[in-house]
Amino acid sequence: MSDKPKPTGPIPAGFEARDGALLIGTRTADEWVEQTGRTPLFLYSQALLERRMAELRAAMPERLRINYAIKANSFEPVLKLMATLVDGLDIASGGELALVQQAGIDTARVSFAGPGKRDSELEAAIAAGVTLNLESEGEAARALAIAERLGVTPRLAIRVNPDFELKGSGMKMGGGAKPFGVDAERVPALAREVIAAGAEWRGLHIFTGSQALDAEALVETQGNVLDLADRIAREAEIAMPKLNMGGGFGIPYFHGDQPLDIVRVGEALAERFAALPASLAEAELYIELGRYLVGEAGVYLTRIVDRKVSHGETYLVTDGGLHHQLAASGNFGTVVRRNYPVALAAQLDAPPAEIASVVGCLCTPLDRLADRAALPRAQVGDLVAVFCAGAYGASASPSAFLGQGPAAELLV
Amino acid sequence: MSDKPKPTGPIPAGFEARDGALLIGTRTADEWVEQTGRTPLFLYSQALLERRMAELRAAMPERLRINYAIKANSFEPVLKLMATLVDGLDIASGGELALVQQAGIDTARVSFAGPGKRDSELEAAIAAGVTLNLESEGEAARALAIAERLGVTPRLAIRVNPDFELKGSGMKMGGGAKPFGVDAERVPALAREVIAAGAEWRGLHIFTGSQALDAEALVETQGNVLDLADRIAREAEIAMPKLNMGGGFGIPYFHGDQPLDIVRVGEALAERFAALPASLAEAELYIELGRYLVGEAGVYLTRIVDRKVSHGETYLVTDGGLHHQLAASGNFGTVVRRNYPVALAAQLDAPPAEIASVVGCLCTPLDRLADRAALPRAQVGDLVAVFCAGAYGASASPSAFLGQGPAAELLV
Repeated sequence: MSDKPKPTGPIPAGFEARDGALLIGTRTADEWVEQTGRTPLFLYSQALLERRMAELRAAMPERLRINYAIKANSFEPVLKLMATLVDGLDIASGGELALVQQAGIDTARVSFAGPGKRDSELEAAIAAGVTLNLESEGEAARALAIAERLGVTPRLAIRVNPDFELKGSGMKMGGGAKPFGVDAERVPALAREVIAAGAEWRGLHIFTGSQALDAEALVETQGNVLDLADRIAREAEIAMPKLNMGGGFGIPYFHGDQPLDIVRVGEALAERFAALPASLAEAELYIELGRYLVGEAGVYLTRIVDRKVSHGETYLVTDGGLHHQLAASGNFGTVVRRNYPVALAAQLDAPPAEIASVVGCLCTPLDRLADRAALPRAQVGDLVAVFCAGAYGASASPSAFLGQGPAAELLV
Repeated sequence: MSDKPKPTGPIPAGFEARDGALLIGTRTADEWVEQTGRTPLFLYSQALLERRMAELRAAMPERLRINYAIKANSFEPVLKLMATLVDGLDIASGGELALVQQAGIDTARVSFAGPGKRDSELEAAIAAGVTLNLESEGEAARALAIAERLGVTPRLAIRVNPDFELKGSGMKMGGGAKPFGVDAERVPALAREVIAAGAEWRGLHIFTGSQALDAEALVETQGNVLDLADRIAREAEIAMPKLNMGGGFGIPYFHGDQPLDIVRVGEALAERFAALPASLAEAELYIELGRYLVGEAGVYLTRIVDRKVSHGETYLVTDGGLHHQLAASGNFGTVVRRNYPVALAAQLDAPPAEIASVVGCLCTPLDRLADRAALPRAQVGDLVAVFCAGAYGASASPSAFLGQGPAAELLV
């Protein structure tokens, strides 16, 4: 290797090798592909999903309830499994409500946030007993009118646009003007109005950001969230039956990323829970996680179709690409492209032998899954594994682009 | 308006108003939405598609043939219309081959480029008489072996990775190491090999970049392409039955963008065609356009679901978003987010009355269709029109994201 490779992200804990080959559950990647009959293939590990939840439960205070935000991965078998592991589910559209209903999940466990809920979505959610996280005064009025027409008592919470942000988060959802939720100072008035209108009052939803790896930033933000909820409850002189404290737990995607210290987050939460203000003493306290629960449990497998050299650079051309893994290609909410964790599935333990770029099959220079990665020598027919593919992969990518169509998915 | 708005791109020529309302063909945007029964809706104008082709034909030398790269928009009615207007079609996958076949288009008019063609795709294309633009020596060997097994003479061209780029293009596809095509210096040997193997030799495909608005850059690049094709033909001592000179014609998306001067491009091409070297005298000469042919003929209509204010900023929350218009949200291949052309469909001519951001219905700050645009006063229920939606819109966006599903599409 004459030139320097670009680093790849860390392979998530829990993936092992058998005779050098990536093992997921009881079989190797190649065996799963053979069974499925096609590539590309998203594999989700039930063992890793369960392990993640168990570790999280162990680290968090017992009082804390955990919601799954199904937008991260709504593949039906994953959704059904997660529903057995978590305390509640969060949806973001009428389409996701339909997915939850098709999966046979009790919709009383579901809450619905989203800034652009159509009347038809409000109606379906109210009729199903879903808790609505109201995003504006206008949405509150529409929801109340629809509930009255249906003759149903709606379950209503208010999503707060907090006046602080989650520091160091990959995506900030608070602190300043935002299209999400109701500005904190207007929440007390709206809460009183909603309660006065006869709704079943379900408290607050305060979401501050996502993909944070810094435990101290999360601890500070969770403290701010509890303070804000208390302030609103006291100002409005209302009870707080439930508080969704948001999420923000990140996973390591890139070289140098360190896993979030959930033990530290849990300890700090336990301290706060031991000294809650009166307004929150009776509240059901939730966090809402998507990516953190499922992201590291998934791997995307794509087959090398061609191996070519251009002006001294080696390209491994695969049958996958950004149409399934938009974020891994660096084209979704990132400014600087960095490599996700990648490996050759049959040579997980082998030392690097060359620098190669792993590209997708699309006719665009954007379609790059790994840029100048140090890899063992790869051949046409080999499988490339792209890790951290459990969240915002299949459903967050343009699968119809260039006529490609979706990848296969499998929970194993 | 106290603060400065951010500029929006220029509304493409050809869109008119009736009583202030955006007219597409014979009806207003609102009338089309009413007829379709839902939003969001992509509308493609047949009149504008035909006008674009007529203007292009008039500007280009008669000898030049024009291909449509269906990746830009493969909605079946658009595909069928375009097939009647152009000389040939370019596909990028087996999926696109199936779309062409379903549309009843003669596959002898089709050529297939793409760096990651699977064996199954090569087989389907060879069996259908499609011309393959070979991307590597390895792909050539696979194609020849498959053709021999099928007992079919394959139609083979070679995609060249040129040693120059299209200056000022939005996406460079030449000049240096690339996963596309065969490095120019290796093409003569491969061409001789393919011809010796008994294939039907279909010449070269030289694609240098896309989305260029500078006529002089295109003129220079097309000259370089003709020179390179001549050099390869002479060095290999082969005939050149066909040359696909690539595309690169851009459309104005953003404030300050000027339309490409196609008259200048056509005049320069005519000059070159009048003095072609012997090697190209008999060649069929093609350009291959996608975005330029269809991009400005489409408009994306989405309905305002909520109107809200946060910390003094006005948000118009729509029922659409990046799941249909990823590029317009600034999340596809762009570093700095800029506003596409947008308007209120019922107030096309009205002067701006406020600064508002148009956001989508997704729970992510990435979902923004217009950032702080100067717009007439909008109400809930109004339609927002996002222009330049004819190419890389519906098919290049993650329509399943957050359970949303695809938009409606209509050719009118």
